Amino acid sequence: MNKASAGHFFEDFSLGQVLSHATARTITEADNSIYIALTGSRYSLYCNHEFAEQLGYKKPPIDNILLFQIAFGKTVNDISLNAVANLGYAEVEFIEPVFVGDTITVVSEVIGLKENSNGKTGIVYVHSKAMNQQGYLVLSWKRWVMVNKRQEGMQNTFAVQPQLSSSVSFESLPTPQSLTLSGYDNRLSGESFRLNDYDKGEWIDHIDGLTIDDSEHTMATKLYQNNAKVHFNHHQMASSTHKQRLVYGGHIISICRSISHNGLANAQWVAAINAGSHLNPSFAGDTIYAATQVVKTADLGAGFGAMRLRTLGYKNNSWKALRPQFEKAVSEKSKLHDDFVLDIDYTVLIPV
Amino acid sequence: MNKASAGHFFEDFSLGQVLSHATARTITEADNSIYIALTGSRYSLYCNHEFAEQLGYKKPPIDNILLFQIAFGKTVNDISLNAVANLGYAEVEFIEPVFVGDTITVVSEVIGLKENSNGKTGIVYVHSKAMNQQGYLVLSWKRWVMVNKRQEGMQNTFAVQPQLSSSVSFESLPTPQSLTLSGYDNRLSGESFRLNDYDKGEWIDHIDGLTIDDSEHTMATKLYQNNAKVHFNHHQMASSTHKQRLVYGGHIISICRSISHNGLANAQWVAAINAGSHLNPSFAGDTIYAATQVVKTADLGAGFGAMRLRTLGYKNNSWKALRPQFEKAVSEKSKLHDDFVLDIDYTVLIPV
Amino acid sequence: MNKASAGHFFEDFSLGQVLSHATARTITEADNSIYIALTGSRYSLYCNHEFAEQLGYKKPPIDNILLFQIAFGKTVNDISLNAVANLGYAEVEFIEPVFVGDTITVVSEVIGLKENSNGKTGIVYVHSKAMNQQGYLVLSWKRWVMVNKRQEGMQNTFAVQPQLSSSVSFESLPTPQSLTLSGYDNRLSGESFRLNDYDKGEWIDHIDGLTIDDSEHTMATKLYQNNAKVHFNHHQMASSTHKQRLVYGGHIISICRSISHNGLANAQWVAAINAGSHLNPSFAGDTIYAATQVVKTADLGAGFGAMRLRTLGYKNNSWKALRPQFEKAVSEKSKLHDDFVLDIDYTVLIPV
Repeated sequence: MNKASAGHFFEDFSLGQVLSHATARTITEADNSIYIALTGSRYSLYCNHEFAEQLGYKKPPIDNILLFQIAFGKTVNDISLNAVANLGYAEVEFIEPVFVGDTITVVSEVIGLKENSNGKTGIVYVHSKAMNQQGYLVLSWKRWVMVNKRQEGMQNTFAVQPQLSSSVSFESLPTPQSLTLSGYDNRLSGESFRLNDYDKGEWIDHIDGLTIDDSEHTMATKLYQNNAKVHFNHHQMASSTHKQRLVYGGHIISICRSISHNGLANAQWVAAINAGSHLNPSFAGDTIYAATQVVKTADLGAGFGAMRLRTLGYKNNSWKALRPQFEKAVSEKSKLHDDFVLDIDYTVLIPV
Repeated sequence: MNKASAGHFFEDFSLGQVLSHATARTITEADNSIYIALTGSRYSLYCNHEFAEQLGYKKPPIDNILLFQIAFGKTVNDISLNAVANLGYAEVEFIEPVFVGDTITVVSEVIGLKENSNGKTGIVYVHSKAMNQQGYLVLSWKRWVMVNKRQEGMQNTFAVQPQLSSSVSFESLPTPQSLTLSGYDNRLSGESFRLNDYDKGEWIDHIDGLTIDDSEHTMATKLYQNNAKVHFNHHQMASSTHKQRLVYGGHIISICRSISHNGLANAQWVAAINAGSHLNPSFAGDTIYAATQVVKTADLGAGFGAMRLRTLGYKNNSWKALRPQFEKAVSEKSKLHDDFVLDIDYTVLIPV
Repeated sequence: MNKASAGHFFEDFSLGQVLSHATARTITEADNSIYIALTGSRYSLYCNHEFAEQLGYKKPPIDNILLFQIAFGKTVNDISLNAVANLGYAEVEFIEPVFVGDTITVVSEVIGLKENSNGKTGIVYVHSKAMNQQGYLVLSWKRWVMVNKRQEGMQNTFAVQPQLSSSVSFESLPTPQSLTLSGYDNRLSGESFRLNDYDKGEWIDHIDGLTIDDSEHTMATKLYQNNAKVHFNHHQMASSTHKQRLVYGGHIISICRSISHNGLANAQWVAAINAGSHLNPSFAGDTIYAATQVVKTADLGAGFGAMRLRTLGYKNNSWKALRPQFEKAVSEKSKLHDDFVLDIDYTVLIPV
């Protein structure tokens, strides 16, 4: 038998199964710098030592989205090596800050299973938890993914779909240890907008576009040690429907977060991702843009504000052209335009 | 009003205006390694700990050109987001060495303004200063840039053009703290040529060519958190005159400096850039070459030699073919060949 | 005379000549992270601090293949700048672990010279040694390379070909300082296979393919400060037989080692490369795959197992299609299929 693993198929998962993901990763200062080189991120908390000190940290924490990418990468070999599509995320909670030198270990539990009627695929729901080297839970998330079956045919197993919250409530929002926003100086961050400057329902067109190239998206995905085949193997993907490699969806999240610095520069801390889905694939050569709607705001006290945001990532188009189509689709409950690539609902902390 | 900024236009600048640039950046060891991966730089002072010790430092300082890129990057959001062209640099002085862990904050003052007669653009002259986290001035430079107007039309404002030195004189050249060249061992640096081996007027053909690719030049520019649109947005640039993204001019300076190691391996320290201009744009796929003329040399004492150099960067051509055209153009005071991309006049320290 | 060096030609080498390579390099944590981003390597010893501690180290050592790339890079300027082809490696021994902060200096001795009958080229054999900053030998290797002559014509010098071992015997295998495999926990590494699970003659199809892009392979080669022209200069290579830049052969070794994690995840330590050759060139756009045969296994005691492996790297093809052709070629002693790019024979340490 070949010792190399072809990855798990739908038949390999069972309800309640616990997968202890291997190849835990120690996060380095370099991961942060490479992340900046790959995404252009400019949030001050992650690249300015003195700014991080003013916010209560001895040194800059790791950007939560970078942490998510690395933790997510650990789960791919066991869960999504044979994934057809990453269907969605929910209840992503950033519980403790992570720093350079911390080692991240990830464990996942299968919390739902559902065969698809085509007999070829099924949906696997997992709850993944990332711990640091001291065993503290730093990140928790749920995702569901469409996985190929090893053999075609229906097993007619009992379908279990987990109950997923549509959001992490502001009340139960994890407030990161040590973080203080009371002395926040927005001259350092690049914008003056604080919690009370944002209105419910307000849209921000983040303006800037970022074009993705092959080396860049594959380097990002390799940095996260995410080994899903669809991102790396042009020889194989050339004969797929897409005729080329797919950009890792997580990279699109990172790019949208980076672009949204323009208009959200003080939203330093992503506290939770309430829901997220990849609406369409992206390819090398695509230019990614983003627009954000303010869904809800709240003053949490002690200088902390929380904002629930909905960021739409789209490609090769303008918000001016897409917004009317988006609003029509929402009111008609019809499908969004094919240029939309990401729809993500998340909660940030921002100074009051 | 959209909270994302479209950047400043010519009308937004006023003489004497001071811009405190946000998103100060702590420089990491990784920035240096990524810089090597992006440029192939081989100057020993920046990548050999023991060599740096022999030259008086506890650890390698940050390459001054990398420092310039990071400091320059800070100014883009406020000054050149809507730049049509970076017209030139002058009086770039590297005053103190910068090390891993230092945080760089940049402030610029508007020192000149001049409308162009087309009514569409104007020239903004700025004096930028980079300070470390202790407030010490580490780098000072002047540049002028052509910026779009928000609205077409002449304001007929008073034009102020600053007096710029054509060079930083050898007498007032900043000698970096701690640097000592008396025990310099050129077996470690790769070449035996010291100050007295170079003749005034001598040309060096640096021979090696380096081809630029999309991911590489955009990663460099993102590493510097330089967010000028022309380098990143293919979707928008596809409908520009150039039909594609432009390579950040600073990356061309870095590449030329890296290439010129072959023939100038002991010119470890760039002390000043007297003048610099980008003659033509570069694009992904271009192969960059460089040739350098020794303009002036001087023994500064204590083992320090200074050389004023003029490096010409050119693309997809040979020095053999371009040199006669260059000399003809100089004698006729006519335009240089379109394959020239960079003309930079700078001063280096080299052991005697 | 132009101060830039065109590199050494065959005529510049003499038997017994010692070349002290310049631009020694201090290895950083970032080099390791960039290496992961460029190759997708997932071996736990190099990216998991706690795992490295369990194996006897205070911190993760540098991946031996990365060490080899950096040390090899130092030799290029003096030996292979004008190389037509890297013909082979032998007796590559990884003697001591190297850590972040160590500075690597490399010295080579010419141990063989042989003119080719075409009068245009000759073969240079060198023995290279890499030392850390304390002077300890950390890596030793022999390689031979076909180098251009400055002037065409036969010199009819005495040909000296060194005696090269076909393998580093298990008995004389360097066992790295501090390494202990007795408490090895394979739940952390991703696979359960230990020494005794592998059979002599067994093949592993590593399944995963990795596509190479231009920025990525040139960044890897620049990170190693390897300045061989064929990898970087599209302008020049466009008029070569290949019509494009060649991927640095060492990068193919790194990619094959990274891919072979799937099936060899516990082969944490490469102790020696017995023989290696690049069978065909690779170019941007090629997808690299690998298959490995177990040549020999041995229990060295104290929990250490040794395996001699032969890894074949190939491109844009499947092992299913290539294996019959490979076996036919071996039995007929004929040339391997053109899709094979690497044939490397090496010895790893693996827990018993």
